[in-house]
Amino acid sequence: MAPAGHQPLTAEEAQSRARTLKALSDPVRLRIASLIASDPRGKVCVCDITPQFSLSQPTISHHLKVLKEAGLLSCERTGTWVYYWIAPGAEPLVSALLGPSAPTVTPDTNCC
Amino acid sequence: MAPAGHQPLTAEEAQSRARTLKALSDPVRLRIASLIASDPRGKVCVCDITPQFSLSQPTISHHLKVLKEAGLLSCERTGTWVYYWIAPGAEPLVSALLGPSAPTVTPDTNCC
Repeated sequence: MAPAGHQPLTAEEAQSRARTLKALSDPVRLRIASLIASDPRGKVCVCDITPQFSLSQPTISHHLKVLKEAGLLSCERTGTWVYYWIAPGAEPLVSALLGPSAPTVTPDTNCC
Repeated sequence: MAPAGHQPLTAEEAQSRARTLKALSDPVRLRIASLIASDPRGKVCVCDITPQFSLSQPTISHHLKVLKEAGLLSCERTGTWVYYWIAPGAEPLVSALLGPSAPTVTPDTNCC
């Protein structure tokens, strides 16, 4: 399956990508990223995210902070509320992981 | 950025994808998956993986087991050695995350 010119990751590249993936390897954060990525307005108010979860506003804010610090979200404050969108540099990754063609992986039970 | 027909993940979908991403959100496991994905033979002996890391064989075997249980690797035993390859169902995900066009995400420091 190796595409031409595909080189193994260096230790530094692996460290950086693992950090990004770690931010997304939580079901609540994946759902938040997915809600934002699929919103037709392109940006979502934190006040519209919280009611979709049975979690407190501070918990949702914590998850948003983790996604933001991993470079996956951008945001701006407008009056009382903060609005979030998928950071432009993260769009290809988020599409690959959350878009309609994102693969669902199931374990190979015939494996050795 | 929402592609047409892109629906937010359900809680169950998010749970399953978070498990897969968690398996890959470790730098050593990412490098192992990358080594296997970029090998022109398409499958790699565990005896060729271990020397690439300054880690013991049992540690490498543990990481291989996590990747296998997440459905990311398939394997077969040939004599003394076990050979691993990217599970066919996981190829699109692994390509998106590890291929040459995989995006590097950097935090938006102008964020709110």
